Amino acid sequence: MLLPSGKTSFREVVEHAPAVCILAENGHGEILFVRQHRYPVKRAVLELPAGVVEPGENPLETAHRELREEVGMDARSMKEIIRFYTSPGFCDEEIILFLARDLFPSPLEGDDDETIRVESWNREALVKGLENREFQDGKTLMALYWYLLKGEEILS
Amino acid sequence: MLLPSGKTSFREVVEHAPAVCILAENGHGEILFVRQHRYPVKRAVLELPAGVVEPGENPLETAHRELREEVGMDARSMKEIIRFYTSPGFCDEEIILFLARDLFPSPLEGDDDETIRVESWNREALVKGLENREFQDGKTLMALYWYLLKGEEILS
Repeated sequence: MLLPSGKTSFREVVEHAPAVCILAENGHGEILFVRQHRYPVKRAVLELPAGVVEPGENPLETAHRELREEVGMDARSMKEIIRFYTSPGFCDEEIILFLARDLFPSPLEGDDDETIRVESWNREALVKGLENREFQDGKTLMALYWYLLKGEEILS
Repeated sequence: MLLPSGKTSFREVVEHAPAVCILAENGHGEILFVRQHRYPVKRAVLELPAGVVEPGENPLETAHRELREEVGMDARSMKEIIRFYTSPGFCDEEIILFLARDLFPSPLEGDDDETIRVESWNREALVKGLENREFQDGKTLMALYWYLLKGEEILS
């Protein structure tokens, strides 16, 4: 590649399909999480529901599908909050973060290689969990900070 | 790999060295950013200073080095805020986020393949920039939400 400086450099780029992440608030002021083993980091990680945009889908459709597959709920309200690159220095993965509200049960059979446990956390537990570093996933931390920062005015 | 369910599955894992990211506040209530072309996403991205932990370094040393290389400043106070995985579903990259304060000029020659422009943004500009989606980097967005959320009590 040719850099603006005129010098050349070799870069290894990881190509990754876009993905969605869903901050789903149930009617009781709780946020829904999934806890699952993540092979690359060799541990169970507590994360917001998320998944890759499949061919033929738009991100909004992916958000509805992943929420149904991972926590068995769909949302009457699904609103884009922000989109961002996870690691723009070596990877083109973009994540679209959605806020899901007005949930209702609507389970959908998910990928059979994912063993997932669903958890719901209220605001007080979230604040305590952040202090105790119980969240290790970047997109999840970002969404929680956003939620605590903007939540009251936006979710009221 | 063998999943907890007993089924086998193939996963491609991207191995990546740990990295640091620095939220550096100068003495005027401004946060320091670097704007640089990011080849993987084919655009210039506004980010907090960051970089990979080199062999023989600990993350704290990397934070000081990267701050000197990228914005020409060092910090008398460098405190770990949080650590997280950028994409635990397919990559083992972990980022350690630091808060840098009490800055002083101390430039260090950086990688010669990085063309970087340094910018400083005050709190009002940050809020407006977030509303206008001027930040597209995940770690940067997370750190800014944290800063706006916790900043006043922690930075006072």
